[in-house]
Amino acid sequence: MALGNDYREQNCFLARALEVVGERWTLMILRDCCYGVRHFSDLLAHLDISRAVLAERLDTLVDNGLLTRSRTGRQVEYQLTVAGKALWPTIFGLMSWGQKYLPADHPPRRFRHVTCAADLDDSGRCPDCGRVPEVADVETRPAVRRRAIDRDDPVAKALREPHRMLTPVP
Amino acid sequence: MALGNDYREQNCFLARALEVVGERWTLMILRDCCYGVRHFSDLLAHLDISRAVLAERLDTLVDNGLLTRSRTGRQVEYQLTVAGKALWPTIFGLMSWGQKYLPADHPPRRFRHVTCAADLDDSGRCPDCGRVPEVADVETRPAVRRRAIDRDDPVAKALREPHRMLTPVP
Repeated sequence: MALGNDYREQNCFLARALEVVGERWTLMILRDCCYGVRHFSDLLAHLDISRAVLAERLDTLVDNGLLTRSRTGRQVEYQLTVAGKALWPTIFGLMSWGQKYLPADHPPRRFRHVTCAADLDDSGRCPDCGRVPEVADVETRPAVRRRAIDRDDPVAKALREPHRMLTPVP
Repeated sequence: MALGNDYREQNCFLARALEVVGERWTLMILRDCCYGVRHFSDLLAHLDISRAVLAERLDTLVDNGLLTRSRTGRQVEYQLTVAGKALWPTIFGLMSWGQKYLPADHPPRRFRHVTCAADLDDSGRCPDCGRVPEVADVETRPAVRRRAIDRDDPVAKALREPHRMLTPVP
């Protein structure tokens, strides 16, 4: 009996997708890239992840065409490709689902379609225009401010203010 | 410096969601539950997963309110709760994303809103009525038949025919 520990024998595109984004931390990294985080050091500080795991996940995302890696001066920048940006509705959907069905002691973020100035519904759709906006057309802000429990890394600080998704942060 | 290997310090509902459904195989198990698979032995045969991992994942899903576990005669049945069913759009979204952006050598499945008899779009929306149907109102079928490469377990065989989601399979 085959007891494979990967998804090779699963004729399903969900299995293919999970091969690329199903490892621990990968969707958290992509969430940060949606926020506009572009540098290794900022991801490291914001995600409490080990350097080795972050490096490995970024390699996988670059190799599979979800991120580009480029050098600007001395800094290496990571940015989402079209395929990477297309995961935004999935990331948003999981976030909304967690907010609705799992107990947590922290306040939610708000996500708003910039063009219509309307908060997205649970499925990531704008109730005004009826479309699922591109991630670039979404603004995020904390629902309430609770500095006492906030994280203190540069990305967390920057995201205390309203922030247009994909624009560089911090 | 904290190098935690879990998501505890991440004030984010995505992190909460991934604590519950982000482990390897969990979304594949939930996909099968959406198909209507209800028994341990059928999940085991369809997923090429180890008995121990499957048992652990099912426990987590029951403990977190995504599945119910009940006994009918001698058999234990697993069924999706409201919270579990609410993950269907996420599962479908990841599947669609994989189909669009990742190379694979197997044909896609079709998913159709039963009420409107229309295939769902990439975001899981019915192009006819404009809504994201409940998983119970979706029918799936293989896009093409390629028996030569098909899996041979009872669930895979049953899913070669059009199948209403959530209805028991095999």
